Amino acid sequence: MTDPRWLNEREQRMWRAFRDMNRRLEAVMGRQLDEAGLSPADYSLLVPLSEAPGRRLRARELRRGIGWDRSRLAHQMRRMEQRGLIAREECPGDARGTVIRLTGEGLRAIEEAAPGHAETVRRHFVDLLTDEEIDTLTAIADRVLRRIAADGRPPG
Amino acid sequence: MTDPRWLNEREQRMWRAFRDMNRRLEAVMGRQLDEAGLSPADYSLLVPLSEAPGRRLRARELRRGIGWDRSRLAHQMRRMEQRGLIAREECPGDARGTVIRLTGEGLRAIEEAAPGHAETVRRHFVDLLTDEEIDTLTAIADRVLRRIAADGRPPG
Repeated sequence: MTDPRWLNEREQRMWRAFRDMNRRLEAVMGRQLDEAGLSPADYSLLVPLSEAPGRRLRARELRRGIGWDRSRLAHQMRRMEQRGLIAREECPGDARGTVIRLTGEGLRAIEEAAPGHAETVRRHFVDLLTDEEIDTLTAIADRVLRRIAADGRPPG
Repeated sequence: MTDPRWLNEREQRMWRAFRDMNRRLEAVMGRQLDEAGLSPADYSLLVPLSEAPGRRLRARELRRGIGWDRSRLAHQMRRMEQRGLIAREECPGDARGTVIRLTGEGLRAIEEAAPGHAETVRRHFVDLLTDEEIDTLTAIADRVLRRIAADGRPPG
């Protein structure tokens, strides 16, 4: 292996602050969702379902959208199905697999949680950014996602 | 409650790309550490220990530094102790509690994993940023961390 390409001081400082920010943001958002009776994993699934046509998605589409592996999604779906937030619709004649449907209960759950979630995202993140910083962050995220996609199949 | 302050389209686009980037980065970095035989949680503990004077830290300092709660840290420490990566030193006369020490084995583990970790962080993130973007990210992270700190005791 060639010489390690360590981060310099400026990069290191950024990387640590960035990681620290993400960890604290996750914690703050997790607490807010917890007050609304949802976990971050619940929320990750409810959002795309609530936005899908007919509030239905194939398991495969859902998995790709949120980047989880099959077993994690299956486990999470079982829990949410037991709580009545989602329902599974098997399509016997359709090899493309299970369709997940948001229930009325699931819709109510996300509609109740969403305003507080948006407020938290604003208060602790978005409202602290200038428009220019927002565009910079979008550009950075798109660039990183392209690099990761180019390096191989998307994780998970 | 007042009207929900939803994100506008530009903010929403940024927020989703940002979250997506973080999730993919976590996955990429997790796989790299996995190849080195460590979990992200192992690495989070090994880094501050390897940098501490005498490679020792009090459990409380360690916990504050990484922002975990007591039970998560205790659980993680037990696992790492069993694998010989860290050792606990109880100080009978000292009410300030347990001291965690990095073992020779733990030092070897982080020394082996660190170059690949740095390379991954560079390849998928840092090398894709301009110096100006690095400074912008540092400024944003510091601002967000100040807001979260001002809003209450740090999470976890």
